[in-house]
Amino acid sequence: MLRGRFITIEGGEGAGKSTNADFVVEFLKGRGLDAVATREPGGTPLAEEVRSILLARRDETVDPLTETLLIFAARAQHLAMVIEPSLHAGRWVVCERFTDSTFAYQAGGRGVDRALVEQLAELVHGDRWPDLTLYLDVPTAVASPRLAGRGLDRFEREDRAFFERVRAVYRERADAYDRIISIDASRELARVRQDIHAAVSRFMESS
Amino acid sequence: MLRGRFITIEGGEGAGKSTNADFVVEFLKGRGLDAVATREPGGTPLAEEVRSILLARRDETVDPLTETLLIFAARAQHLAMVIEPSLHAGRWVVCERFTDSTFAYQAGGRGVDRALVEQLAELVHGDRWPDLTLYLDVPTAVASPRLAGRGLDRFEREDRAFFERVRAVYRERADAYDRIISIDASRELARVRQDIHAAVSRFMESS
Repeated sequence: MLRGRFITIEGGEGAGKSTNADFVVEFLKGRGLDAVATREPGGTPLAEEVRSILLARRDETVDPLTETLLIFAARAQHLAMVIEPSLHAGRWVVCERFTDSTFAYQAGGRGVDRALVEQLAELVHGDRWPDLTLYLDVPTAVASPRLAGRGLDRFEREDRAFFERVRAVYRERADAYDRIISIDASRELARVRQDIHAAVSRFMESS
Repeated sequence: MLRGRFITIEGGEGAGKSTNADFVVEFLKGRGLDAVATREPGGTPLAEEVRSILLARRDETVDPLTETLLIFAARAQHLAMVIEPSLHAGRWVVCERFTDSTFAYQAGGRGVDRALVEQLAELVHGDRWPDLTLYLDVPTAVASPRLAGRGLDRFEREDRAFFERVRAVYRERADAYDRIISIDASRELARVRQDIHAAVSRFMESS
């Protein structure tokens, strides 16, 4: 295996992206692969500063175009400093959220023009799309209680209609793209991990 | 005068943009106009946070595309929250730096593709260009000593070749666009202000 692969973990709030990203990295390492976990927005010190700006609760209304451009700015930095160098060094990159999130949250949730998100995606990463995307699908009624007790950020505080729009775009993309494997993440963790294990194994055999 | 006008002050480091922006605002107020001074990157609390990210000296290399997207993110916010509402309320907006800076610094200085800057400009502000731009032209040898004693930010620490490229793009744009008035800002302040006064007066008579 000469070249690394790019795997993303997608899903709404409370779907279990972070813990399952770690699980995928451990699984890959167990197969003798060099794997790194990272996340968006963020993944570099500068991009994490942009993440803080994005998540902070504030009095100022954040223009949806501003939000979208900040996310792609952080993404450009993450690609240049972490994702591309890692892939070229033969590392497998397991990343929480990537451009599928931007379609779901900014186009779906905020109503930003999809063509604009497509234009920025093309400009920032061309045809660098994930080789495999695990979409952790959770009904919004299941996800909400999992957030209880966390200090909610600017996105987590959105209403249920927002998250329904986010989920609708995720599901539409999962139907449209073979690289996206939809996993029912409303079940108990062991069952979810069986599916993740199977999906990643199939991907490794076929790639 | 039912509609506000959009005036920008452009130029390299140490050209006197800030003090002359204040001068223009005072001049406009003296003519009975409602005028507001603002700046880029910045002009809103969120956009000023983005400015801090851009100017901070850091170990991490800042990808030129990241830098360009951050600037346009701050610009989108500034347009949505300050520039457009002010102009629609009949206010005159006097802004230090706008997209001419992005052509000069990011395309000229950093070597970002001009077509990409044009694409982002179209996406973020369409045909909202300044009605009048005062370009304060200073040879880099004059500007440098004016910065002495300041704590230099990430841009101010660039080398002379960088600022020569910035200046070349500014001068090219000043030649290409009638809205840009080039003012020799290497002279003493009183002379510079005579020219600014004359340029703004001519603009007010013709608009």
